[in-house]
Amino acid sequence: MNESIGLIGLGSLGMPLAENILAAGYPLTVYNRTPDKAKPLADKGATIASSPAEVAQGSRFVITLLSDDVALKAVTLQDEFAQQVGAGGIHISMSTIAPQTARQLADHHAGFGAGYVAAPVFGRPAALAAKQAWVCVSGEAKARELVKPILSDIVAQGIYDFGDDPSAANVVKLAGNFMIGAAMEAMAEAMTVAEKNGVSRQALIDMFAATIFAGPIYRNYGSMIARQVYDENVGFRLPLGLKDMNLVLQMAGEVNAPMPLAQLVQGRLVSAMAKGRENWDWTGLAYGAGEDAGTTN
Amino acid sequence: MNESIGLIGLGSLGMPLAENILAAGYPLTVYNRTPDKAKPLADKGATIASSPAEVAQGSRFVITLLSDDVALKAVTLQDEFAQQVGAGGIHISMSTIAPQTARQLADHHAGFGAGYVAAPVFGRPAALAAKQAWVCVSGEAKARELVKPILSDIVAQGIYDFGDDPSAANVVKLAGNFMIGAAMEAMAEAMTVAEKNGVSRQALIDMFAATIFAGPIYRNYGSMIARQVYDENVGFRLPLGLKDMNLVLQMAGEVNAPMPLAQLVQGRLVSAMAKGRENWDWTGLAYGAGEDAGTTN
Repeated sequence: MNESIGLIGLGSLGMPLAENILAAGYPLTVYNRTPDKAKPLADKGATIASSPAEVAQGSRFVITLLSDDVALKAVTLQDEFAQQVGAGGIHISMSTIAPQTARQLADHHAGFGAGYVAAPVFGRPAALAAKQAWVCVSGEAKARELVKPILSDIVAQGIYDFGDDPSAANVVKLAGNFMIGAAMEAMAEAMTVAEKNGVSRQALIDMFAATIFAGPIYRNYGSMIARQVYDENVGFRLPLGLKDMNLVLQMAGEVNAPMPLAQLVQGRLVSAMAKGRENWDWTGLAYGAGEDAGTTN
Repeated sequence: MNESIGLIGLGSLGMPLAENILAAGYPLTVYNRTPDKAKPLADKGATIASSPAEVAQGSRFVITLLSDDVALKAVTLQDEFAQQVGAGGIHISMSTIAPQTARQLADHHAGFGAGYVAAPVFGRPAALAAKQAWVCVSGEAKARELVKPILSDIVAQGIYDFGDDPSAANVVKLAGNFMIGAAMEAMAEAMTVAEKNGVSRQALIDMFAATIFAGPIYRNYGSMIARQVYDENVGFRLPLGLKDMNLVLQMAGEVNAPMPLAQLVQGRLVSAMAKGRENWDWTGLAYGAGEDAGTTN
């Protein structure tokens, strides 16, 4: 019989994850700050809890998928929560957070015998729904080994194991989001100079995404950047992208690693916020290069 | 019977190209400023010319593959050369040059009835030898259509057509080299911050190159950057990489398109030159992020 799973956080990634957990046949208990979101899941057999601790009480594995460190700590850096996860239980932490937060949570939970596994995820909502996401995991070895097959069942087309340090997977996740933002800025500058030379933005990315830059990042984000439409099919809102780049710079600052390219990408996001683009996809950071070159309206 | 081909420039890309032309059964005439390089080709049936004009005289298609605009113009922005290419002949220009140079050459050749097709190539020497390079072409339509099948025969696994403007393919080539340099800097900063957090550089790129950044750029350059070895298997020397980034900035300046990321990449290359690294592969621009973070010796 399948282990019981709890899920805290029913945002754009949490909802498809919840659907997958139910479809995979796991008993599921959910909690969301706005309970309305949970109702469709209750119709499909999920139990709605009235608090995070209640989720933990009823579940062997408690997954959290929240928008930032503040929210995650408010929910899980709590003695009652860790107590309810308790000995034998495992907190699977899938949010994109600071490595320091992961270390803090793992240490806190250990005091209650509760396990902590970092499992941040790469994938936009559609990829998670299709169980085509990529997940990096790290944390205590036994807990990690228990968590990996569950992740394969509910969300991952592949899992990459970064060992015992609970913060390692979050380092990787932030590094990856940084590299995605960097690719967006590169595409933006490349397409802008091409456009000003009479070469089609789409023709440029069509070639690169089929050849030297084959892969989902250049193909999918490249199309958005070529068309310069950033307020449709918003998969990851701009303020969240800025939050992540700030986490990257915070992480880099903590270890004295200058990251001028991360500073540049973060600056594009700050400027987009200044211009009221908080409802855009974060790919909209790419609009800055065109604005600088006078090619936008 | 195969059309006669001429080749001017027997550098790291020209030599494998010459081998391929001979292997494909084309009559080949070659010229190189240092004639010694041509001797092995003569043994395989190539004719060695004593001047570029002599190459043009004996060939329907004249390929040039030289290291910079200065060399190319010295050879081909010459009335005698264009005369010998003449009506019906086509200059296939495969060097990485400024778009402005391409326009200048096309205009000059047109005065002599000679065709000009831009055909810059993406690929390191091994890829060219294996006929796995990618080529972008542009230029007058009839000449372009004659050139494409030849390129497929001798070097290209795929050809991307950018239309009538003789400079368009060079815009694409420079944009692509810029995006490669940008990816190198992104990998450098990502791996450096990961390393300082105890996460292996190789483990990081192993995941990304297999998932979100699948493709030759991140896989191949990523391995070099992970190992931080830049003076072995040098496929494209650092001064040539700097030359290309300078061409990118020149192109951007001509159309008033600010490219802060290109400035950053160029700065890394300039710094590498200042430190005597002219014999490194241009991927060595990635060493800068580690030096800034104090992780290198």
